[in-house]
Amino acid sequence: MMRTLYFQKDSKRGIKGTYNWLLEELGELEEALEGENKKGAEREFADVMAWLASLANITGVDLEKAAIEKYDSKCPKCRQSPCQCDF
Amino acid sequence: MMRTLYFQKDSKRGIKGTYNWLLEELGELEEALEGENKKGAEREFADVMAWLASLANITGVDLEKAAIEKYDSKCPKCRQSPCQCDF
Repeated sequence: MMRTLYFQKDSKRGIKGTYNWLLEELGELEEALEGENKKGAEREFADVMAWLASLANITGVDLEKAAIEKYDSKCPKCRQSPCQCDF
Repeated sequence: MMRTLYFQKDSKRGIKGTYNWLLEELGELEEALEGENKKGAEREFADVMAWLASLANITGVDLEKAAIEKYDSKCPKCRQSPCQCDF
């Protein structure tokens, strides 16, 4: 969906510009969380998710596949569920 | 899945600590993208996705629902697909 909506614009903006926008959205999420604004936080979570997908699209990464390959219902470090890592 | 794997640890770490870890993962993603390391970038995308889900879990936000509510196959600003916004 993000590809359909924004791929052309995302491509023109490029990786660095899109990454910077993602970083900015993360700052807005932090503010919303600090303000304990639940509805605002939901919108910022949506934006971070969206910009992460945009960045994945222009770098040729399948975000869902990448996530599921690393997090396959077990912790990638200790291979347990729930995670038993010592951190 | 992230809730099953990490919710207990995420809750103990708290919102600020989890946010900071997410920010750190975003820095690692930037490095992987700058190094043009595709496989490394995929792993970092997975980590950013994972920590974003962790943060959503401990703040009581349904990440998928939040994303789909704002990005419902149309641009939330111009309501067009593809986006026709002037930026």
